[in-house]
Amino acid sequence: MNIDDRIPRDRRNDYSREMADKRRSFLADKTGETLEYTGQFTIDPGVLPGNIENFIGIVQMPVGIAGPVQINGEYAQGQFYVPLATTEGTLVASYSRGMRVINECGGVTTTVVEQFMQRAPAFLFENARQARDFGQWVSANFATIAEVAESTSSIAKLQHIEQWSVAKMRYLRFNYTTGDAAGQNMVSKATLAASEWIKQHSPIPCDYLLSGNMDTDKKHSQLNMIHSRGRRVIAEIVLKKEVLRKIMHVDSRMMAKAAVLSNVGARIAGAAYNGPHSANGIASLFIATGQDEANVVESHAGHMSHELLENDDLYLSVTLPSLIVATYGGGTGLPTQKECLNLLGCYGKGKANKFAEIVAATVLAGDISLACAVIAGHWVSSHDRLGRNRP
Amino acid sequence: MNIDDRIPRDRRNDYSREMADKRRSFLADKTGETLEYTGQFTIDPGVLPGNIENFIGIVQMPVGIAGPVQINGEYAQGQFYVPLATTEGTLVASYSRGMRVINECGGVTTTVVEQFMQRAPAFLFENARQARDFGQWVSANFATIAEVAESTSSIAKLQHIEQWSVAKMRYLRFNYTTGDAAGQNMVSKATLAASEWIKQHSPIPCDYLLSGNMDTDKKHSQLNMIHSRGRRVIAEIVLKKEVLRKIMHVDSRMMAKAAVLSNVGARIAGAAYNGPHSANGIASLFIATGQDEANVVESHAGHMSHELLENDDLYLSVTLPSLIVATYGGGTGLPTQKECLNLLGCYGKGKANKFAEIVAATVLAGDISLACAVIAGHWVSSHDRLGRNRP
Amino acid sequence: MNIDDRIPRDRRNDYSREMADKRRSFLADKTGETLEYTGQFTIDPGVLPGNIENFIGIVQMPVGIAGPVQINGEYAQGQFYVPLATTEGTLVASYSRGMRVINECGGVTTTVVEQFMQRAPAFLFENARQARDFGQWVSANFATIAEVAESTSSIAKLQHIEQWSVAKMRYLRFNYTTGDAAGQNMVSKATLAASEWIKQHSPIPCDYLLSGNMDTDKKHSQLNMIHSRGRRVIAEIVLKKEVLRKIMHVDSRMMAKAAVLSNVGARIAGAAYNGPHSANGIASLFIATGQDEANVVESHAGHMSHELLENDDLYLSVTLPSLIVATYGGGTGLPTQKECLNLLGCYGKGKANKFAEIVAATVLAGDISLACAVIAGHWVSSHDRLGRNRP
Amino acid sequence: MNIDDRIPRDRRNDYSREMADKRRSFLADKTGETLEYTGQFTIDPGVLPGNIENFIGIVQMPVGIAGPVQINGEYAQGQFYVPLATTEGTLVASYSRGMRVINECGGVTTTVVEQFMQRAPAFLFENARQARDFGQWVSANFATIAEVAESTSSIAKLQHIEQWSVAKMRYLRFNYTTGDAAGQNMVSKATLAASEWIKQHSPIPCDYLLSGNMDTDKKHSQLNMIHSRGRRVIAEIVLKKEVLRKIMHVDSRMMAKAAVLSNVGARIAGAAYNGPHSANGIASLFIATGQDEANVVESHAGHMSHELLENDDLYLSVTLPSLIVATYGGGTGLPTQKECLNLLGCYGKGKANKFAEIVAATVLAGDISLACAVIAGHWVSSHDRLGRNRP
Repeated sequence: MNIDDRIPRDRRNDYSREMADKRRSFLADKTGETLEYTGQFTIDPGVLPGNIENFIGIVQMPVGIAGPVQINGEYAQGQFYVPLATTEGTLVASYSRGMRVINECGGVTTTVVEQFMQRAPAFLFENARQARDFGQWVSANFATIAEVAESTSSIAKLQHIEQWSVAKMRYLRFNYTTGDAAGQNMVSKATLAASEWIKQHSPIPCDYLLSGNMDTDKKHSQLNMIHSRGRRVIAEIVLKKEVLRKIMHVDSRMMAKAAVLSNVGARIAGAAYNGPHSANGIASLFIATGQDEANVVESHAGHMSHELLENDDLYLSVTLPSLIVATYGGGTGLPTQKECLNLLGCYGKGKANKFAEIVAATVLAGDISLACAVIAGHWVSSHDRLGRNRP
Repeated sequence: MNIDDRIPRDRRNDYSREMADKRRSFLADKTGETLEYTGQFTIDPGVLPGNIENFIGIVQMPVGIAGPVQINGEYAQGQFYVPLATTEGTLVASYSRGMRVINECGGVTTTVVEQFMQRAPAFLFENARQARDFGQWVSANFATIAEVAESTSSIAKLQHIEQWSVAKMRYLRFNYTTGDAAGQNMVSKATLAASEWIKQHSPIPCDYLLSGNMDTDKKHSQLNMIHSRGRRVIAEIVLKKEVLRKIMHVDSRMMAKAAVLSNVGARIAGAAYNGPHSANGIASLFIATGQDEANVVESHAGHMSHELLENDDLYLSVTLPSLIVATYGGGTGLPTQKECLNLLGCYGKGKANKFAEIVAATVLAGDISLACAVIAGHWVSSHDRLGRNRP
Repeated sequence: MNIDDRIPRDRRNDYSREMADKRRSFLADKTGETLEYTGQFTIDPGVLPGNIENFIGIVQMPVGIAGPVQINGEYAQGQFYVPLATTEGTLVASYSRGMRVINECGGVTTTVVEQFMQRAPAFLFENARQARDFGQWVSANFATIAEVAESTSSIAKLQHIEQWSVAKMRYLRFNYTTGDAAGQNMVSKATLAASEWIKQHSPIPCDYLLSGNMDTDKKHSQLNMIHSRGRRVIAEIVLKKEVLRKIMHVDSRMMAKAAVLSNVGARIAGAAYNGPHSANGIASLFIATGQDEANVVESHAGHMSHELLENDDLYLSVTLPSLIVATYGGGTGLPTQKECLNLLGCYGKGKANKFAEIVAATVLAGDISLACAVIAGHWVSSHDRLGRNRP
Repeated sequence: MNIDDRIPRDRRNDYSREMADKRRSFLADKTGETLEYTGQFTIDPGVLPGNIENFIGIVQMPVGIAGPVQINGEYAQGQFYVPLATTEGTLVASYSRGMRVINECGGVTTTVVEQFMQRAPAFLFENARQARDFGQWVSANFATIAEVAESTSSIAKLQHIEQWSVAKMRYLRFNYTTGDAAGQNMVSKATLAASEWIKQHSPIPCDYLLSGNMDTDKKHSQLNMIHSRGRRVIAEIVLKKEVLRKIMHVDSRMMAKAAVLSNVGARIAGAAYNGPHSANGIASLFIATGQDEANVVESHAGHMSHELLENDDLYLSVTLPSLIVATYGGGTGLPTQKECLNLLGCYGKGKANKFAEIVAATVLAGDISLACAVIAGHWVSSHDRLGRNRP
């Protein structure tokens, strides 16, 4: 029996407390669980349509504040208090500790490199030659295809179409800029319109599937490491050796050695990220600010780079090639989530680059902190012996 | 200025409403954002130590109910109402729709294959030969090492140690079973004890780093696809062609063709998952039930398999090799999260396999639904033409 | 002591038999091995400069003929006898057997999709922002950069430059067409000229390394799977079920099932190819025809696709995204190698697409043969039982 | 018409010159190419059965000598002159140059870590639960399975079986030691026997395919990077900064910087090797010594590690995880190939570890040489500016 079977059909899109109560009551009958706390919420459920269906209540996720962190970005400039929604103890404290190091070193520099959101239909033909020729026709008609795609949205702009021939398929990957929205739905609609136009006008008959998984939506991929999905953002810092020693009790040279070990391990394992734990900061900041919580799988991929400078200070950077964020739409407008974005000065249009910079800075802070913790606790070594690395 | 600088040092571990109020007030001074809704919560902050630091309030994430879904598992048996915490509209409805298909086809069969949690220290030597010989010594001393590791926990059991030589490093990967806990902290503690013992007793002097990134903690990796991290769980179903046609308006042969296109695209892209969107269901179910929200990056990896049967029914399965779940500890004990676990009959010890089966069933439901939606909307093709696939 | 220390300095570039004799004599003194057979060669060593240094003789690699194979390409049309240089028994026979199947099914259709050869310098800056801005400057100056690059060669044409920001580096990947040469040296020279121009004219000071390994020269990479290196070639066929049964004693439905198993295994393993053994045919055909023998590592990557048609015939195709071939230059002009190219009508300019089609057809033949052998010998199953795949 | 159709059936296994002449004559009729040089060979074709079919002649591949190189291995000790069969100019000279650097630095240290050869059958069941239970039964019966497998060979020893559940399949990966043979055929035979025994005795009915592509035979894979296939060998050296400066005109600090750039590029590209060009040395040494020429695709994978020591000397190492070599069987016994193995003191039983060490040393030499060439030619930078890497 479906949960809404007891609810009159014309009330099923009703997000009132009354309907949520009825659904919880139904579940209590079925399962014995009364969902008492879940039923206690202070937000007006009238704001929820567009965010949830079969609404029964809310889950309360605690929020802690990390920071402030000094960010020297192009969009984020100054000190930021970063709200992290998590249930994992020590996470907030650890990120805060990293931020303290960052501040003592003058702040983190952040750079948004580029932005794209993709939808990648697969076109199917009778043979490979048709697929290839079709691809050439698509290239020749890019301007018209872009016009059709962009007619569906005031925001999405088609930048380029990547193409791949495999067997008798031609995979197209439409790359759009999508302003301050994450844009997955926007580019689906645009690409559907474009694909329908293509199907109707292509000189070679074809079928297509709106996604052939080369988007690669809601999953990590090497393709995302190479080409950006969402925003490609880089956070950089030069860690002063004195600061590392004073705050983290870590030697900068040891930290460089540890980074090498981690980098090698990540490569052999085929890991999506070679630093300590980008996913922790991204997930908790995403939840606090109403981001699509599943996007952490694409967003956590990246590359940590380090360089021991001549004075033993340590250059450290995090490159996140596929950070997917939004500052309006989706969950960003829900009451608590909007407040957390406001706390960062990041709610609304024109704020996504700023928010992306804050996410990257947060990741770097967390990785500084955890890297040092691992070293300080367990990496008990004599500098001399390691210096004598003779095979 | 740190957020707690105004709070007396001896109250900093105070999770009372009063302290949260003070912190929000501090933030309001600094940012202008009063965090009104974030400050409204019904849970007792006294339960939070161990889950958060610098607590300021809660973020309210709406929960919708998908299902019920019929699961024919070894641990999960019967009809389950699945709570999904999300801010993405249509997600709950889509998963529900997939569950309806599952039910009409007799339910989903789920199988937990194995369970491991890892910590992977990197040991560093003067040269490769030392590293190799050390590895042989580790193998010879496995029983003692296991004893030392297991002395730190009543639950963690060391099953085996994988080893890799790269350059002059020896990476060890300790594989434990960890009962119904996710176990990352448990295995860290155990592996630290074991590594200290190893360092002291190894006939070859060495340094080590507790994690050399081959764990691979909080990140997707090909290694996780190969060897299981968390639980390896499989959900299977035979989709009846009549059910697909009636509920989803999709032809089972078209669905098989679409699965091939998606599979090829995923392989070329180097994607962590070859189905539509495992991450959505996992992320929202994880948040609702107090799982470590970052674990979705490891958990979303997997393999979707299909087979068109002789009668045109469609075998479909999802293999999740690294699904990391817990049914106690971490965030599972928070009031709303615990209720959501209770709704599934999954709170407490002895429930993790059951919960893992429910997650896998949920992923399968969501992928059935989205795959069909893509086909029904956009895959307009004549069966005859596709049948004539002559190159 | 160097092998040429006994040879007068002014004779060191002398490729005469006399000098080879002297070198072998030196080696006999040092090692006791007289290299009798290695010293017996019939080619004129005067042709060798440009192909080898410190020449001592030749290694004799036996050549067998596979085929003929019927190819319905755009460049290769008709029946071809394929020379394979190998020391692995059964290899030639196996490829021949696959070619017989191809012929009975009407021949293999081949399609060259595109051609590129790359050199990928890494430019290094003081920070990520410089690197990004530099990249925009490069894009704006593409026409001039192309002019500079193309001034170094009458053949190489710069098609496009891919760009990636990582940390404070900007990786550029110059994509050229190189006619009928493999082109690695040609594009190095062109890219060096372009990079020097860039370095001198860039408004942002930079250093660069001519290859930052994103070429990815002489190594397999996922990048090569995505973007083509060398030629992207596809070979397709519809295998008639009667032919499979008659010649290979294999049921086409069993073959489809086996292809699925192999495809899944390849994805989990992270394998560069999901068919049986592309490398065998490519390596032996490369050696016979004077290709750069190391290029097999890039060339063997690919995707095998299959589709069981309604009449139980089996569509099978091989996509080789990075097949690197040449029909002049390098080793193609050596006496025996040139003969082997001539045998295929592929020596000289204007022949590389034809040769690429023959390689792809050969790979498909070998994979049909080995796939069937594995099935016929070991895949003893009742069709009924497999048809009942109920979980 | 098949090439042997003119040859009487009872002479088809005849490897005499007469038969080769007949085949070339046939080809001349068909193609106009007389294969004059290919028909000139000095080896006795009577040695060829087991190495080739449809024999028509030989391809003459020039051999140059690189070295000597000082190797401080466990098996290879002393100075070695390395025969490289190639048609690529500068290759031999470049490897020789790297060997000169090695010698001046005291030689290369080599270590064979382990050896395995695999065959990986896929077993297919009705559902995932059967597949899992089957796997447990396999583990419980390992001793008997090993006995059956080893009964087929006097050399192959079954070390362990890796297992993976995906969907309703169970992939087994049999890991053997195979002495001084590469062992692919040996392990096929052993695994076939074991699989047949398993199929007959398994309490759960199953079908199997002898290879489900997780071997992963004749293709690169991430699995091969993780687990060794063939031999895992490591070559290490400390490059003295004075030697680099004197011979290569390269600064050791610049070389370290370049290694970082290459390492990052390789990781982003998903490359099988992060050094310059392992494939070149491996391919040419393999051809000279009668190795299976296709094995270069598995063998070229690896990891280059570097570490700038306190005195600015540079530790450099190459780890080849899947180097597949043999010192008897296959092509190693052909006249010229055997001579080249003899030159290294590597023909026959008990020599494979020695030969593996020589291959690894050769790879390291080539990578030192090419890395320096790239830097010396093109990496024109002021040390001061790079030292000021401030973001």
